[in-house]
Amino acid sequence: MKSKAMVLKEFMKPLEMEEFEIAPLEAGEVLIKIEAAGVCGSDVHMWKGEDPRTPLPIILGHEGVGRIQEIKGKKQTVYGEDLQVGDLVIWNRGVTCGQCFACKILKDPSLCKNRKVYGINQSSAVFPYLNGCYSEYIILNSNTDIFKVEDTVDPALLVSASCSGATIAHAFDMISSVLGDTVVIQGPGPLGVYAVAFAKSMGASEIIVIGGSKERLDLCTYFGATLVLDRHETNIQERNQMIMEKTRGIGADLVVEAVGTRGVAEEGLKLLRSGGTYLSTGYAQPAGEESIDFYRDIVSKNITVHGVWVSDTKHTKMAIDIVMKNKEHFAKLISHRFSLEEANQAIASMNAREALKAVLIPNRG
Amino acid sequence: MKSKAMVLKEFMKPLEMEEFEIAPLEAGEVLIKIEAAGVCGSDVHMWKGEDPRTPLPIILGHEGVGRIQEIKGKKQTVYGEDLQVGDLVIWNRGVTCGQCFACKILKDPSLCKNRKVYGINQSSAVFPYLNGCYSEYIILNSNTDIFKVEDTVDPALLVSASCSGATIAHAFDMISSVLGDTVVIQGPGPLGVYAVAFAKSMGASEIIVIGGSKERLDLCTYFGATLVLDRHETNIQERNQMIMEKTRGIGADLVVEAVGTRGVAEEGLKLLRSGGTYLSTGYAQPAGEESIDFYRDIVSKNITVHGVWVSDTKHTKMAIDIVMKNKEHFAKLISHRFSLEEANQAIASMNAREALKAVLIPNRG
Amino acid sequence: MKSKAMVLKEFMKPLEMEEFEIAPLEAGEVLIKIEAAGVCGSDVHMWKGEDPRTPLPIILGHEGVGRIQEIKGKKQTVYGEDLQVGDLVIWNRGVTCGQCFACKILKDPSLCKNRKVYGINQSSAVFPYLNGCYSEYIILNSNTDIFKVEDTVDPALLVSASCSGATIAHAFDMISSVLGDTVVIQGPGPLGVYAVAFAKSMGASEIIVIGGSKERLDLCTYFGATLVLDRHETNIQERNQMIMEKTRGIGADLVVEAVGTRGVAEEGLKLLRSGGTYLSTGYAQPAGEESIDFYRDIVSKNITVHGVWVSDTKHTKMAIDIVMKNKEHFAKLISHRFSLEEANQAIASMNAREALKAVLIPNRG
Amino acid sequence: MKSKAMVLKEFMKPLEMEEFEIAPLEAGEVLIKIEAAGVCGSDVHMWKGEDPRTPLPIILGHEGVGRIQEIKGKKQTVYGEDLQVGDLVIWNRGVTCGQCFACKILKDPSLCKNRKVYGINQSSAVFPYLNGCYSEYIILNSNTDIFKVEDTVDPALLVSASCSGATIAHAFDMISSVLGDTVVIQGPGPLGVYAVAFAKSMGASEIIVIGGSKERLDLCTYFGATLVLDRHETNIQERNQMIMEKTRGIGADLVVEAVGTRGVAEEGLKLLRSGGTYLSTGYAQPAGEESIDFYRDIVSKNITVHGVWVSDTKHTKMAIDIVMKNKEHFAKLISHRFSLEEANQAIASMNAREALKAVLIPNRG
Repeated sequence: MKSKAMVLKEFMKPLEMEEFEIAPLEAGEVLIKIEAAGVCGSDVHMWKGEDPRTPLPIILGHEGVGRIQEIKGKKQTVYGEDLQVGDLVIWNRGVTCGQCFACKILKDPSLCKNRKVYGINQSSAVFPYLNGCYSEYIILNSNTDIFKVEDTVDPALLVSASCSGATIAHAFDMISSVLGDTVVIQGPGPLGVYAVAFAKSMGASEIIVIGGSKERLDLCTYFGATLVLDRHETNIQERNQMIMEKTRGIGADLVVEAVGTRGVAEEGLKLLRSGGTYLSTGYAQPAGEESIDFYRDIVSKNITVHGVWVSDTKHTKMAIDIVMKNKEHFAKLISHRFSLEEANQAIASMNAREALKAVLIPNRG
Repeated sequence: MKSKAMVLKEFMKPLEMEEFEIAPLEAGEVLIKIEAAGVCGSDVHMWKGEDPRTPLPIILGHEGVGRIQEIKGKKQTVYGEDLQVGDLVIWNRGVTCGQCFACKILKDPSLCKNRKVYGINQSSAVFPYLNGCYSEYIILNSNTDIFKVEDTVDPALLVSASCSGATIAHAFDMISSVLGDTVVIQGPGPLGVYAVAFAKSMGASEIIVIGGSKERLDLCTYFGATLVLDRHETNIQERNQMIMEKTRGIGADLVVEAVGTRGVAEEGLKLLRSGGTYLSTGYAQPAGEESIDFYRDIVSKNITVHGVWVSDTKHTKMAIDIVMKNKEHFAKLISHRFSLEEANQAIASMNAREALKAVLIPNRG
Repeated sequence: MKSKAMVLKEFMKPLEMEEFEIAPLEAGEVLIKIEAAGVCGSDVHMWKGEDPRTPLPIILGHEGVGRIQEIKGKKQTVYGEDLQVGDLVIWNRGVTCGQCFACKILKDPSLCKNRKVYGINQSSAVFPYLNGCYSEYIILNSNTDIFKVEDTVDPALLVSASCSGATIAHAFDMISSVLGDTVVIQGPGPLGVYAVAFAKSMGASEIIVIGGSKERLDLCTYFGATLVLDRHETNIQERNQMIMEKTRGIGADLVVEAVGTRGVAEEGLKLLRSGGTYLSTGYAQPAGEESIDFYRDIVSKNITVHGVWVSDTKHTKMAIDIVMKNKEHFAKLISHRFSLEEANQAIASMNAREALKAVLIPNRG
Repeated sequence: MKSKAMVLKEFMKPLEMEEFEIAPLEAGEVLIKIEAAGVCGSDVHMWKGEDPRTPLPIILGHEGVGRIQEIKGKKQTVYGEDLQVGDLVIWNRGVTCGQCFACKILKDPSLCKNRKVYGINQSSAVFPYLNGCYSEYIILNSNTDIFKVEDTVDPALLVSASCSGATIAHAFDMISSVLGDTVVIQGPGPLGVYAVAFAKSMGASEIIVIGGSKERLDLCTYFGATLVLDRHETNIQERNQMIMEKTRGIGADLVVEAVGTRGVAEEGLKLLRSGGTYLSTGYAQPAGEESIDFYRDIVSKNITVHGVWVSDTKHTKMAIDIVMKNKEHFAKLISHRFSLEEANQAIASMNAREALKAVLIPNRG
C-alpha cells in the first residue's frame, strides 16, 4: 500500500509530490488516513527556511485530523477508551520522551529536549517516512496521544486545535483566571482568534484585539471581542489611550501577544496595568530583538512576562474542547480549502495573507 | 522640642542641617527617636536627581530604626501587641491607602497609587515635616505598620530590612520554592546579599553570585554563595559556560537581577534553564533599554520574568525575620557608620562604592 | 432626622420597629437611604440565635443597596471615583482593620479578627446605632468599601452580591480555573445559584446541581446547570453513579458545597475525581460533625478541601460584576419582596423555604 | 543465574525464602543487585493484609538501593546520563503509564490508575517475578526512573528516600513556602523525620513535633525540631495551648499529619491558624473515620486540607537531594539492619515499634 505526500526538498522551492510505500506497523503504531491537514503560519516560515528546526527532505504539516486505518496492537485514549479502526481522531502533534528532566521533574513536556513533532522536526528520510500531514497517510508512533472525536464533525474545523489552539491553551493554562478582566490580544490570526475564544470562555469582561486586517478583526468580533483596533487606522498612542479609557485609566489585566514580529512586545507591555501579565505566544521563529525599558515597563509596574513555547497533551485537549463547543465559530476560521496536490497554492495563499487559515483535504471524496 | 535633620534642597548639592519644631502628634501618630538610618543606593540616585519621585526640599532616609518617644493614643503591631514608649521599632517605609484598586482588589499594596514613602516622596515642606530618617526624630502617621524588635539588637543591623531586604523578600514571595534549585544572583550589593540569604534559607542547592567587587563577593560567600564569579576576571561567555557546567547543561532555575544597569537582563536571561524564572529587582531608577530576543531568550525557553517593585508590610516582616536569624552575618553588611552631620560623607562613600552599606547614627551616645 | 428600623431584641421573637435619631456624620462616614435589603438565610439563623456572632439588640440585614444621602468629607470608590450624594451604591458588608496579621501579613482580610459586619456583629446599641440594613437608613463608616452601580439597575437584584455572591466569588477565587471542568454543586439556594453562575462564566463544561426543590433546581438549569439531581428522586448511590457516568468514570473536578448541613461533605467528597477540589462554603453556622474517611476520601485520592469563610472587597466586586452581566437571570432569584414593616413575614418565608430570596424595600415609592 | 527472595504467601504468616531463576532481560530492563532494602511501616500493614492493594504471593520491599548488574540496551537518568553496569542507583518505586488522564492531562503521575509499584502491587507470580526488594536481585522495567547516586554513600541511608521521603517531598511540593512559618508535625516516625528535614531546609522558623516516643522525638530535635511534645506527658488541651503560646495566639501556619490513625486529623486541624494548611500524609491504609466539625475547624477558619497520596519521580529526586545534603542526620534514622534471611525479624521489630527504620542488607559482604 502506498501514500502520496507533498515533500519539501529545498527551501523556497515548490513542494514535490512523492509516493511512499507504507511500512508495516510496529507495536503501538497507528496508521491514519488524513482527512484534513492544516496549513499553519509556521509552515510558511519552514518553507522559507526560517525555522531552525526544519530537516530536509520533510513532509510538512503538523496539524492533522484523520481516520484510523490500522492499529498494531491495542491503543487507548487518555480517557482509557480503546481506539478502533474507523475512528475519527486528532493527536498531540508533539511526542515526548516521558523520561527526561522536563518530562519527569518539571512535568512540563513542552520543554522535552527529545520532543518529536510530526511535520516539523521529522524528516521523510527517517523511518517510517510518513511523518507529516501533507500526505494521504501518516504513521503515528506508540507514544502519540490520540483523541477520538465525534464522527460527524468537519475534520477541517479541528486541525488548528493541534497547533495554534493548543499553544493558546498553554498560555491560558499558565495564568489563574481572567474572570472580569480586560484582555488585550495583539494579532487577529489563528492564535489571536483562539485567544479571543479562551478569554471569552473563561469570563473576561473586555476583549480588545489589535490587528491590521479588517476581515480578521471582524472575525474576532464574531468570536466575542468587545473592541477591535485597526493598526492602519490608529497609531500606538491612540491605541494606548483607548485602552486606558476602557479601563478607567488602570490598563489591561492581561495582554496576549500573538504576532511575533519586532516591536510588538514593546507596544504590548505598555498596555498593562501595574501587576498585569504579558503572555508571549507569537515568537515561534527568530524575529530580532525587542527594546525593553525594564525600569518603566516591567519593574516599576511589577509586570509578569511568560514566554509560551508550544504545548502538550493537556493543551491539545483544551483546544479540542473549545472548538467542539464553538463549532459554528471555528468553521469561519477556515478561509480556504485545497487538495493535497494544491499544497503549494495553499502555502502561497498563507504567505500572501489572503488565507486566514488554509486546510488541505488529502483524501477528498 | 526640636529635631535636627539633614535636608536635600538642590540636587547634587550637599544636604544642609536644619532644625525643625516637632509638631504636636495627631491621633495614631508615633514620634520616633532615630537610632540608625540606612544610606541606601537609591539615596544616591535621589541626591543626583535621577529618581523621578523626589520632591524638594526633602529629608532623605527611608530606612530607619528607632525608639518610640511618644504615641498619640493607642497603636498596635500586626501581632496585636500594644506599642509602648521606649520600644525599639522598625516600620514599613511605605504607607498605603488601604482603599484603592491595588490595596483592595489586587491586594498588592506595593502598587498603591497613593503610597507615601518616608524619605522618598514626602517633602519636608509638608506637614508634619519630619518625614525622613536622616534626622533625630521622625513622625510616623497612623497608617504606618510598626514592628517591635528585641531591645538588645544593634539598630544598624536592621535598617536595610526595610528597603533592600523587603524588596528581595517581595521577589522571593512571588515564586513558590527554590528547594534544591540553582539560583544565580546578578550583583553582590545589599540586594544581592539579601538574595543569597533568602535563597539559602529556602533551601537552594547552588547559589552563584556574579559581581565586580572581590570584597562583596567574599561577603556573599560568607552568606552562603557556593560559587562567585568576578566580572573583572570572566567574560559573559565564560560565566555562561561555568553556570551550564554547574547545572549539567540545564541552566539555572532562578536568576535574581540585583543590579539595575544596562545589559544585565540580557546576560541574565541566557543563564536560565527552559521554564526558569527571572526576578528583576534592581531597576529602581530609569536605566535605559535592554535588547531582548524574545524568541530565543523568553518564548522558546518558556521563561517567566517578574518585575519586582518595592514591597509591603509582609515583606518587611520577612526581611526582619531573616536578619534576626542571621545577626552575625548581617553585621558584616554594615561597612561604614557616620553621625547625622556626616550624611554628605556617607552619601559620597556610597557613591564611590567604598561603602557596601553606610548607616547614620543620629543620636549617638 | 430619623430612621425607622426593625430590631431583633430577643431570639425567636418578632423584630420590633424602632425609630432612631440619625447622628451627625463623622469624617468619612456616609449616610445611605436603603433601597433594598436582602433577607439572607443566615438572618434566619441569627434570628434563632444559632449564629454565635449575634449581639442583641441588633438591626439585622447585611445585604444592602441604597442611595447616598450625605457624605462627610470626601470618599472614593476603589476605582478612585468620587462618590456623590444621590449615587446608587452597594458596599462590602464587612469592614476590616487594615492593620492586623490577617490584613497586612496574610493579605486575607476575610480573616481579620477585627472585622465588623453590618447587620451581623454590630449591635444597634452601639454608636452610630444604624448598623444594619433592615432600616430606612444605614451609616457606613469611613473604612467601608463602597461601589457605585448604574442608576437604572433594580436595587433588589444586587443585594445578594454582598453576601452569597461574594462568598461564592471567594470560593472561585481560591482555585485556578474551571475551564472544561465538571463542577458539582451541592445545594440550589442563593449560594448554589451563584456557584452555577460563576462556574458557567469561567467555562465549566458540565455543571451538575444536587438539591431538594424542583423550583430551585429549575432556576439552576436556567442559570446554566447541565444536569440537576433531585434529592427526593435519587439516592446517594444513584447520584454518585450518574455523576461517574457523566465523567467517563473519572469523577468531578470540583465540588462546591453550598448547603451546610450534616452529611453533605460526606456525600460530596465521594463525587470527586482523584486530585479534585472541594470548596466548602455553606457551613456558616455550627452544624455538627461530618464523618470523614481520610484514607478513602481525602488521602488516597489526593483531594484538596478549602473552607471558604466570608469574603472581602475583591469578592464583592466579582459578585457585582457577575450580577450586572446577568441581570435577567438574577432577577429570577428574587422570589419575594416585602416592605420594611413586613420583615418578620420575610424571615418566616425564608425559614419555611417558601422564598428562595426575599428582599425588603424599606423606602418604597 | 538465580536470586533468593523472601516471599509473603499468606497474610500474618512468616515470609518464606524462595529461589527464582532470573529471566533474560527485555529491552530497556535493568537488573539490580540489591544493596539495601527498606522495611517500611506499610510493609507491616501489607503483611497483616491491611493494605487492599496487596496481591499474593509477593516479594515485599518497595524501597531499594542497589548496583546495576545488567542493562538491556541503553538507559538514561532524567539528567540524560547513560547508566552503566556497576552504578549505584535508586529509583522511583512507582512506574506509571505515561498515557492516561492522570499522566497526560493532570500531569500528576501519582494518580495514574495503571501505576505499578515494586513490592506493593506486583505479585511474584507475574513475570519477571523479581518485583520486590526483599531479594538479592530485582528487575526494573523500561519505564522505571532510575537515579545514579555517588558510589561512596551507604546504601541503607537512601532507601527511605524512595518512600517516606518522596511522600513528604510530595506534600511540601503542594505548598508554596514555609519560610518563617510555624510547622507542626504529627508523628515522629520516618515520615515525620522527613517533614522536619524539609521544613528546616525550606526555612520554617518553628518546627514542633508531637509524638509518643522519647527516642523518636529526640531524633526530631536532632534534625531541627524546635519543640517536641510527648503524647504521654501532655494532653490535647495542653499541646494546643503550648502551640498557641508559641505563635502569639495565632496558631500554626502548617500542620503535617504523619501518623494515619484515628483522631489525629481531629487534633491537628485545631492547631492551625486561620488560613492555614493541613497536609495529610499518614493515612496510607484504611483507618476508620475522623469526626470533623466543618464549621468550626475548616470553614470558619478558611483552612486548606491536602490529601497526599504517594509520590512521583520529582519527589523521589527531592528526597534523594535532602538525604544527600544531610547524610549524617539520616544515618541516625536507621535503627536496625538485618540480613535478607532475617526479614521476618525486621518486620517484627517494626511492628513492635522497636525499630524506627529497619533495613535489609541482602548481599552482605
